[in-house]
Amino acid sequence: MSLKIGIVGATGMVGAEFLDTLERRRFPVGELLVFSSGKTKKSVVFRGRRLDAPAVSIPALCSCDLVFFAGADEISKKLAPQLVQKGVWVIDDSSAFRLDSRVPLVIPEANAKALAREKRLIAGPNCTMTGLAVAAAALQKEGGIKEVRISSYQSVSGAGRDALAEFFGQAQDDACRLKFSASGRAPIFSEKPARFLPGKISGNVIPQVGIFDPAGNSSEEIKVAAELRKVLNAPFLRVSVTAVRVPVVRTHCLAAWIVFRRPFSVQKAARLLKKAPGIKFYKGPSYPTPLSCAGKYPVSVGRLRQGLGKSELCLWVVSDNLLKGAALNSVQIAEELLRRGWLKA
Amino acid sequence: MSLKIGIVGATGMVGAEFLDTLERRRFPVGELLVFSSGKTKKSVVFRGRRLDAPAVSIPALCSCDLVFFAGADEISKKLAPQLVQKGVWVIDDSSAFRLDSRVPLVIPEANAKALAREKRLIAGPNCTMTGLAVAAAALQKEGGIKEVRISSYQSVSGAGRDALAEFFGQAQDDACRLKFSASGRAPIFSEKPARFLPGKISGNVIPQVGIFDPAGNSSEEIKVAAELRKVLNAPFLRVSVTAVRVPVVRTHCLAAWIVFRRPFSVQKAARLLKKAPGIKFYKGPSYPTPLSCAGKYPVSVGRLRQGLGKSELCLWVVSDNLLKGAALNSVQIAEELLRRGWLKA
Repeated sequence: MSLKIGIVGATGMVGAEFLDTLERRRFPVGELLVFSSGKTKKSVVFRGRRLDAPAVSIPALCSCDLVFFAGADEISKKLAPQLVQKGVWVIDDSSAFRLDSRVPLVIPEANAKALAREKRLIAGPNCTMTGLAVAAAALQKEGGIKEVRISSYQSVSGAGRDALAEFFGQAQDDACRLKFSASGRAPIFSEKPARFLPGKISGNVIPQVGIFDPAGNSSEEIKVAAELRKVLNAPFLRVSVTAVRVPVVRTHCLAAWIVFRRPFSVQKAARLLKKAPGIKFYKGPSYPTPLSCAGKYPVSVGRLRQGLGKSELCLWVVSDNLLKGAALNSVQIAEELLRRGWLKA
Repeated sequence: MSLKIGIVGATGMVGAEFLDTLERRRFPVGELLVFSSGKTKKSVVFRGRRLDAPAVSIPALCSCDLVFFAGADEISKKLAPQLVQKGVWVIDDSSAFRLDSRVPLVIPEANAKALAREKRLIAGPNCTMTGLAVAAAALQKEGGIKEVRISSYQSVSGAGRDALAEFFGQAQDDACRLKFSASGRAPIFSEKPARFLPGKISGNVIPQVGIFDPAGNSSEEIKVAAELRKVLNAPFLRVSVTAVRVPVVRTHCLAAWIVFRRPFSVQKAARLLKKAPGIKFYKGPSYPTPLSCAGKYPVSVGRLRQGLGKSELCLWVVSDNLLKGAALNSVQIAEELLRRGWLKA
């Protein structure tokens, strides 16, 4: 257990999942250096011991074998290249390098082959597309994917700690007003401005994740499409996404329609999904939900059906955005580096 | 104001919307007979006066000019044909007759032409497809619709009063537990059994509305597809639906991809939607949400974008399931009968 591991952004919400995941999966951490992402608390607990989380220190980070970044894009942009130059492995969960052609964007179950010994900076993908990429990769070899349409049901934790705290407050305010009107009507709640999301999310759904481009696509929708193409190594894949925030604490869901190059039966797809690594397949009439998948590692896939025609399948994909969509995926990349002997414990 | 109007199911949640809508739209009600759907309260208030709501009485109903049904399928099935035979106009909001080829299924903005003087039994559609049908009808003449893919974000009131009351209780229970864990993790809520929905809906989304057929489609998904074909008079329209319940009190949302027979630009679609009756069009970056549309009459359409290719459009459609999806649509049908002079005030 001689690995020296650093976590930048350890005091944030994803940071807490990193600590939990490293501990639960018995990752061979010899020494752990944790750094605050800034505004939140200044210490964390790992394996029952409290660790100080100071502001980032480049010399300290350079002494690590591997550093996980779980913070803002700007921090990764500034620090990651410096660390890599010093021979440190960097697994970056921000979106800073995901679409950089020199940087592998990796979901181990989908494209571990994108890893390369000389590429010490590795990006983890957007939390919304991770689950679908795992499922699509399991089907891709068999069918060749032509088109993907996705609508998302994204939890509030994907928008960060402040947004989630804001949601908690709204839901607590609403609770006492959840009652029928005197005349028996279902209550009508008003819109309210919010600070950390585009509007009130409690009792609402918001079809905006990020900001819109001139064509009307949100930044999240653009990320999902571009990252899916990169992870599936399918640069001409046609992808259309509608990204929607829902009043759920953690775990993102996707309804997806995948059009293949050839006919693809539900039976064959079910067989492939059942045996695919990292997937929990739900045979109908059972299906996964955010509550049944929160805190769990696998990507859950259910509601598998034929879409419009024999070459199209419908899927319902659920995965914990803070785990498979963030911390777990990064730790899995590190485990793969260990397995290959590129990183030595 | 000489019309004698009956409402069966007046004491339910949709019944309350009927009373409100008839009053707010100054529908020429001379006399109103209200009947309880059974288990709930036994009186209602209309125009400030309390009215008794006894169990249904066929002779009383037969004395009406027009009867609205806002109750269970079985009640409509049993009573509606008898009333029609007596010359009473019946507008049925249950699903009993929607797919009966002898019964017009009507959304006035979409297919008022399906009304016929001799067809006194008229069905109103499923609350989930109503909004989309209004939008699709506005585009159909121009483009010819080939395929529709829909994923829904359906509010709990669509599942009825008991389900909504159950949701209120769950949300109130959850409220005090909405906080970060000691280690800063986003809380993990457990699944819980529920009585009136397939699972706990507070803080969750559930991809099951109704029951599943052997192919894995839910009854709601099948209804939406079949009713959309009927209302759009497009028997060969290819429709794929994923119906999902979300923790919202009222108002359903749909993310839809519509494939047309020919290229259809966003600009042209925006022009058509802007001038279409019954539609409030949101130009980006603004968009409708359940909270901004609850209690409102129009169908709201936003997030209009090109889909995969020039012949496909993406839409985000929001409409109040208890109003345009139920009571309002029925009252609008009655207003159309008045306009045509088939029903005389």
